Amino acid sequence: MTDSQEAELSSRLLRGASTFQLLHWMASGRLTPSRLCAIYEKAIADENDALNAYVALDTTAARDADASEQRRAGNQAIGRLDGVAVAIKDNTDVAGLPTSLGLAGRATRVAESDSTVVARLRSAGAIILGKTTVDEGALGTTGTTANSGPTRNPHRPEFIAGGSSAGSAAAVAAGLCSFAIGTDTLGSVRIPASHCGVYGLRPTVGEISTSGVVPAARRLDSVGILARSVQDLAIVLQVLDAYDVDDVRSRRRRVALSPPDWEPGRLRSGFLPNLAALGVSPEVSGLFARATEALGLELGERMDADFSGYDFARVRRAALLIMESELACELESDLDDGAHPISTRLRDMLGFARHKSAVHYAAADRMLDGAVLKARQLFEQFDVLVLPTVSHGPYRIGETERANDADLCSFASVAGCPAISLPMGMLESGLPVGLQLVGAPGSDLRLLELAEVCASRLDAVPDYPVVQRA
Amino acid sequence: MTDSQEAELSSRLLRGASTFQLLHWMASGRLTPSRLCAIYEKAIADENDALNAYVALDTTAARDADASEQRRAGNQAIGRLDGVAVAIKDNTDVAGLPTSLGLAGRATRVAESDSTVVARLRSAGAIILGKTTVDEGALGTTGTTANSGPTRNPHRPEFIAGGSSAGSAAAVAAGLCSFAIGTDTLGSVRIPASHCGVYGLRPTVGEISTSGVVPAARRLDSVGILARSVQDLAIVLQVLDAYDVDDVRSRRRRVALSPPDWEPGRLRSGFLPNLAALGVSPEVSGLFARATEALGLELGERMDADFSGYDFARVRRAALLIMESELACELESDLDDGAHPISTRLRDMLGFARHKSAVHYAAADRMLDGAVLKARQLFEQFDVLVLPTVSHGPYRIGETERANDADLCSFASVAGCPAISLPMGMLESGLPVGLQLVGAPGSDLRLLELAEVCASRLDAVPDYPVVQRA
Repeated sequence: MTDSQEAELSSRLLRGASTFQLLHWMASGRLTPSRLCAIYEKAIADENDALNAYVALDTTAARDADASEQRRAGNQAIGRLDGVAVAIKDNTDVAGLPTSLGLAGRATRVAESDSTVVARLRSAGAIILGKTTVDEGALGTTGTTANSGPTRNPHRPEFIAGGSSAGSAAAVAAGLCSFAIGTDTLGSVRIPASHCGVYGLRPTVGEISTSGVVPAARRLDSVGILARSVQDLAIVLQVLDAYDVDDVRSRRRRVALSPPDWEPGRLRSGFLPNLAALGVSPEVSGLFARATEALGLELGERMDADFSGYDFARVRRAALLIMESELACELESDLDDGAHPISTRLRDMLGFARHKSAVHYAAADRMLDGAVLKARQLFEQFDVLVLPTVSHGPYRIGETERANDADLCSFASVAGCPAISLPMGMLESGLPVGLQLVGAPGSDLRLLELAEVCASRLDAVPDYPVVQRA
Repeated sequence: MTDSQEAELSSRLLRGASTFQLLHWMASGRLTPSRLCAIYEKAIADENDALNAYVALDTTAARDADASEQRRAGNQAIGRLDGVAVAIKDNTDVAGLPTSLGLAGRATRVAESDSTVVARLRSAGAIILGKTTVDEGALGTTGTTANSGPTRNPHRPEFIAGGSSAGSAAAVAAGLCSFAIGTDTLGSVRIPASHCGVYGLRPTVGEISTSGVVPAARRLDSVGILARSVQDLAIVLQVLDAYDVDDVRSRRRRVALSPPDWEPGRLRSGFLPNLAALGVSPEVSGLFARATEALGLELGERMDADFSGYDFARVRRAALLIMESELACELESDLDDGAHPISTRLRDMLGFARHKSAVHYAAADRMLDGAVLKARQLFEQFDVLVLPTVSHGPYRIGETERANDADLCSFASVAGCPAISLPMGMLESGLPVGLQLVGAPGSDLRLLELAEVCASRLDAVPDYPVVQRA
């Protein structure tokens, strides 16, 4: 091997490593923050044009990495994440960068200060690399932005990455950051995690502050994490979850992040009795059956989850009305002054909300309350709900978005539950698909423990960084 | 004194006693549940036609009182409230009685089971006497029902009792029950408590279950208590607050009911700088100034509460839109089939919601989020907000309802805070008016302790039962 081959190998190895591993290498002096940052910056320069994961780069990243390097050299790391480098979804404020929300006209909307989540990352020593793509208005599941076009799947560039946290998932899979921040309203962390073959966590609502994030639907919004290992999700969650006086849904006495106390072998797992009725494709069903069979011991006692009387499609429509109403409300001044050219698709969605009455909104919101009660009933019967993350694999860029894309993810959202997507296998197309674990509100840590056990048993994780095949 | 004079005196004495005192007399054997129940039933038979506090009586009350009597005789009282007798606002389900909500057409809407709050009262041994008047649709502050006409103020029958928990407040003041249950969305416990000269508690949202109560605005609804002493409020609160799996806003880990740990003399009290600007009448302002002067020591350090940027009228209108939308949603099927004749006033209010869009609802709901954050800021500066309960005294039945009636109460509601109204003095008209204490969410017990100290210092409480003067 030549020196440059060796350097390339080592660069690829570092880009594919988990945050946990990177932190270990940094702590033991084998890796410096500056080197890691330079590797990401070079990879982004080389690959982002094709992938479209980043929409904006933070020009202070290298300088921040130098500062971290000096802290590390002086044994004065300021926090758990000192020196790792993060990508931030472009609906979340980073001081000095625009918060474009995937809209064509918001490039000049530069954030004056960091969102709470970014501030916490920085105060733990993390380097902010830049902002990642999001569906136009964060209302979508394909990763199609209006400012930079479609986000491409790192596994196969002619396929979608999923959305709306498209760029965050793609950047993690492609090794263009250590981990990434996304947001999940009806599945926007889990869907792209499934499509890109990475791990995605949607925490209990209120655990991570949404202050400085453009609201999609306040009662459903959860800031989430995308990473290359379950361990990374746990490390980052524990850095980010805290009371924030500026977030209405943040609680001083938060839901207890229950310690991992599920007794192995006594776990009760709920399964949906009929996946086909929910539109799950035979291929995804087959992978799900194989994966859960392999997890026989880990998932303990199996039982049917009784979803009778729960209409996934109606609840999704109710949640969508709330999202559309809130986005119309958020963009009102922008739209009125014509500063924001938006697509016909988005204009129709916002128009829908404007033509529904306040009584319809109240009815939709009450329907979501019903989902919260449904979850309470279900989690008295079992500890974890196990289901596919999405009903089908990623489709080709340009194909029409399917209405039920978020149905399997929506339940955790409307019920305020934590949920994790982990890679469970590869489809014939060579594209990955995820397994989803949903727990009762506050069971985030237990869910992470279970996901860790399942992940090591499944061994279905792609090699990172994913090598694009055309 | 003749025997009948003596009996009358003793009956009046019992009717005016606090629940705490009644429980003491029962525990020491000087009073039996049956006797107490009979006294209330006779008083209701004699006086309710004129007062219009009760709309329906529970015919099993006497039998329930007998059962309580036997338990007490056998030293087997089942709970803290065994033998005292309660009135329930007519938006709260009592099995076997209609939940009329002050509407003309709901007399046949008989509840199949008890609401959670009634079930908890019964399981603590309380006797349910009947249902009390509520403004039509619980949307009002005058106590004018559509099924039984106006509720009269026990102090002067030509004046309103306040609303919407009109009958509950009037029944407590008139000595027609031991204490009463009301509900408070924008002030519906505190306003009639002020008008009738009784104590009213609106607990932190989620503390007492709203399951089995017709929702007015789910995020604002708080089941409250009306009583003849602060001690009674505390006793009943501790019986009623509990997690309820059927109430979305109930929390397993509830806001800590902080123990009374305000150091006397180190309390910081916030005052509104300009009551006149909020429409507070000179007479109410005068009584408030005198009362708070008398409470100099008790209220500790005084500071201005900075409400700049907070528009009471706008927030009230936002909350009203949400209430109207939810009520339209609740009554939808009733209204469509024409089974419910409703007043023009209510029809207009519901029509307003139907003509506002879902985007307006979202904007109103976001405005309420802003109020939550405002309260967080304020309660970092001081411990308790002190203000009048209402801006003016009760007005004459038939006078037009004023738009700003609930403004002084609305802040605690939209911010999810506990609040107490306690009598602070009598107006020239011979009608009472209340002082309001508002605390941070979860400070219910501290607030009750402070209210107790203030009540004993003020000594402004009318004699119960109030004797009507025409």
